[in-house]
Amino acid sequence: MPVATPISACDDDLAAVRYDANGLVPAIVQDGDSGDVLMMAWMNEATLRRTLESGRTVFWSRSRQEEWAKGDTSGDRQWVRRAYYDCDGDTLLLVVEQEGRGACHTGERTCFSRRFGGD
Amino acid sequence: MPVATPISACDDDLAAVRYDANGLVPAIVQDGDSGDVLMMAWMNEATLRRTLESGRTVFWSRSRQEEWAKGDTSGDRQWVRRAYYDCDGDTLLLVVEQEGRGACHTGERTCFSRRFGGD
Repeated sequence: MPVATPISACDDDLAAVRYDANGLVPAIVQDGDSGDVLMMAWMNEATLRRTLESGRTVFWSRSRQEEWAKGDTSGDRQWVRRAYYDCDGDTLLLVVEQEGRGACHTGERTCFSRRFGGD
Repeated sequence: MPVATPISACDDDLAAVRYDANGLVPAIVQDGDSGDVLMMAWMNEATLRRTLESGRTVFWSRSRQEEWAKGDTSGDRQWVRRAYYDCDGDTLLLVVEQEGRGACHTGERTCFSRRFGGD
């Protein structure tokens, strides 16, 4: 059973994040074990704070217009081990421990399983 | 000297990519050697096609409203080894061989060098 590890981010770090016109920032999720990029989803300021404080990824669903804590339904929770923001402050990177089958609703471990030009 | 490896994507793959209201799709760039996520930038349909055909990352600059082939100025080119799109078709993942110092204009190898909660 993975353990939540809350991250105490300082105000300067949180203030450096730049949200788009909809108040959202893209968040890349990477598997801390394999290094695979698992998925990309969106956060607003509230879900970023919830992610850091709870130690689990929480996103904003643009289609449903609501918060979703990844894995609440599927059990495929993501436990945050490290969290970064980029040089422009407009993209996040969460390095996680992926619980369960994987990140993708299709059942694949990563959402990036379709390759241009085939295998 | 890295070698360009063009990718012959089939029409079905290209048609599966979904662009936002501005005709753009986020493109995550990952270092094929280290597995590090290097940066995230945006592509439109034309720069995605140029990326696959040239074997180098080409993006759309939202601030300058123009195409930019990564590394034309800095020399820090990115040679595409594999290219993926996600389950929703609305995010791309490019696995590259990073030439030069790295991906970030600050001189860091990755744009994600600032960590919440410090080191």
